[in-house]
Amino acid sequence: MNQEELEKCIDAAQNSQQYAHCPYSHFRIGAALLTSCGKIFTGVNVENSSYGLTICAERTAYTKAVSEGYKSFKGIVVASDLKDRFITPCGACRQFGVEFGDFEVVCVKPDRSTFKSSTHKLLPGLFSQEDLIAKAEQDERECKAQN
Amino acid sequence: MNQEELEKCIDAAQNSQQYAHCPYSHFRIGAALLTSCGKIFTGVNVENSSYGLTICAERTAYTKAVSEGYKSFKGIVVASDLKDRFITPCGACRQFGVEFGDFEVVCVKPDRSTFKSSTHKLLPGLFSQEDLIAKAEQDERECKAQN
Amino acid sequence: MNQEELEKCIDAAQNSQQYAHCPYSHFRIGAALLTSCGKIFTGVNVENSSYGLTICAERTAYTKAVSEGYKSFKGIVVASDLKDRFITPCGACRQFGVEFGDFEVVCVKPDRSTFKSSTHKLLPGLFSQEDLIAKAEQDERECKAQN
Amino acid sequence: MNQEELEKCIDAAQNSQQYAHCPYSHFRIGAALLTSCGKIFTGVNVENSSYGLTICAERTAYTKAVSEGYKSFKGIVVASDLKDRFITPCGACRQFGVEFGDFEVVCVKPDRSTFKSSTHKLLPGLFSQEDLIAKAEQDERECKAQN
Ligand SMILES: [Zn+2]
Ligand SMILES: [Zn+2]
Ligand SMILES: [Zn+2]
Ligand SMILES: [Zn+2]
Repeated sequence: MNQEELEKCIDAAQNSQQYAHCPYSHFRIGAALLTSCGKIFTGVNVENSSYGLTICAERTAYTKAVSEGYKSFKGIVVASDLKDRFITPCGACRQFGVEFGDFEVVCVKPDRSTFKSSTHKLLPGLFSQEDLIAKAEQDERECKAQN
Repeated sequence: MNQEELEKCIDAAQNSQQYAHCPYSHFRIGAALLTSCGKIFTGVNVENSSYGLTICAERTAYTKAVSEGYKSFKGIVVASDLKDRFITPCGACRQFGVEFGDFEVVCVKPDRSTFKSSTHKLLPGLFSQEDLIAKAEQDERECKAQN
Repeated sequence: MNQEELEKCIDAAQNSQQYAHCPYSHFRIGAALLTSCGKIFTGVNVENSSYGLTICAERTAYTKAVSEGYKSFKGIVVASDLKDRFITPCGACRQFGVEFGDFEVVCVKPDRSTFKSSTHKLLPGLFSQEDLIAKAEQDERECKAQN
Repeated sequence: MNQEELEKCIDAAQNSQQYAHCPYSHFRIGAALLTSCGKIFTGVNVENSSYGLTICAERTAYTKAVSEGYKSFKGIVVASDLKDRFITPCGACRQFGVEFGDFEVVCVKPDRSTFKSSTHKLLPGLFSQEDLIAKAEQDERECKAQN
């Protein structure tokens, strides 16, 4: 993301926070996902009375983009109301992000100060689709060896 | 949903199926969520190499609508490629739906034939926000009784 | 479950509630899952700071049993602290349960009064493994028809 | 974990793989979680026809331990069948693990070779309960400031 894109994404992420559905945590998170072609998809956390079904802002943004046909991303910005610390994506959102490759992840405070990382940096030694493919290939080799 | 709305939603749900990210199940699902004010939000299943992080088409549609400020719905249409049976929402999506009240759920086959139900019918004796509220009220009563 | 089994499961479910990890909801749930051979596996809700990763008491009990080699069940008892209403399984737990067939689900209040249902009754028109199998069979038929 | 504990955990994790419920991925994972007091809890992946409800081996082990009253851990061993690469925990399991602090995470191949890391190393800049506490404290400060 260049500076102009980053600023736009911060605006979008912070603006979307108002739509968070967070009656349980009261924690308003907004996200803005920038596609490789320059389109922005926002997301908010959508909580559920059965806590385990809660979906974070980042995953909302990812599914939104995918459902419109976009799977290639430049970066994602995550905005919270916390003034004294950066809120980073939870492990679930980190895993959800790497499904679409390595791209920037920027956490932003209300004063627009940022912490910059990337999907791959946030999930060192990550588990991915390559593991499933490696497993399938190993199974095939062993199957052939037996026959 | 009236007939015209239903037809539009079926079109939207079936059209969105092409965007499903389903390299693991190869099961393309599309959803179309109709807001009370007549707006349609589509959704697709977005799978993940860690299967447990997969998000279904219905939940994609719900989070999408919420993230744009819509929380009141007339109904949701769910489209699959299965010709011989209706694919109904999984339990996770049923629970996610009731968070926003009781509204129509329509499952549709490729030939546009439908199975009609509702969020509340699909989750009899449902667990909901009311349970959390009842718990909080009970805790408060007991707390006062002790003091 | 016969009456003796039910009483044992209620004891086990209510006794396990003390182990719930629920710093966010303060909602202590306990479950007791009875295998077909008479073994009881207990479960509690294990919440997470990222709400969406929370696992309910019922799913804890199911995974526990499966991890010890048990997949055939007579019933599950779910105990809460709510005095005025029965707490039923959330949609996620309902879906998780039907993976292992149709069996009794009993919700119990602190006074041991019960609400009895079953995994299939709680998820009418359920989505299941049969749907995935039907999809695979359809794909195979269509593949053959093309060749 | 000392060497003896590690060997025991590898045995337990690899032995539990046989119980994995993985009709969809055919990926058998076993986990062995060592409590601070020396008890071992095993876990397996329990998949679901609705992929998104799948629970991994690590989370099975964590919920199992918690449901028996154990929340303090020395380490967790994760075993897969992959011979050529180490399978690391997915993001969901990483987040689930840090709920209980910083402890060893050891990934093991069938030949017992290991890759050693820790819950905190696997989730750099992690999101945790401290974030929720910081949010609550900020809300309280701002509430007081307004009154
Ligand atoms: Zn998250
Ligand atoms: Zn679903
Ligand atoms: Zn549940
Ligand atoms: Zn995992």
